[in-house]
Amino acid sequence: MKQVDVKAKFGQRLRDIRNQMGWSQEHLAAVVGLDRSYVGGVERGERNISIENICKLAEALEINPAVLFEQWGT
Amino acid sequence: MKQVDVKAKFGQRLRDIRNQMGWSQEHLAAVVGLDRSYVGGVERGERNISIENICKLAEALEINPAVLFEQWGT
Repeated sequence: MKQVDVKAKFGQRLRDIRNQMGWSQEHLAAVVGLDRSYVGGVERGERNISIENICKLAEALEINPAVLFEQWGT
Repeated sequence: MKQVDVKAKFGQRLRDIRNQMGWSQEHLAAVVGLDRSYVGGVERGERNISIENICKLAEALEINPAVLFEQWGT
């Protein structure tokens, strides 16, 4: 797995799960307590997100954090 | 899942997997290209590790990053 790709793959996975739930970026950001622009940056692969924020997103989405690292389509 | 616990749970999981492989912190750090003291801090739950470093550790251990988020014993 190329390191250059991990932020983008994580972001795409987050976006896919969020869309499956029918949530907007705004809604997810509000539930997690993060800025919408930050969530957008994560989804675009621009942010080197930390484990604390990864777990906050997973908790908001009611999934195990591991799910965000599955089906990356490597 | 309490946010206060995620760094410690991740660190314990990393330590367990590293020990299962019979690797020292020094060896893991050298393979990943990180300082041993940093890896030690992650294992002790003191570091808010980023997705890039999570994936570097997983690549060195030849596991999917998701494995580091499983069996946290919540």
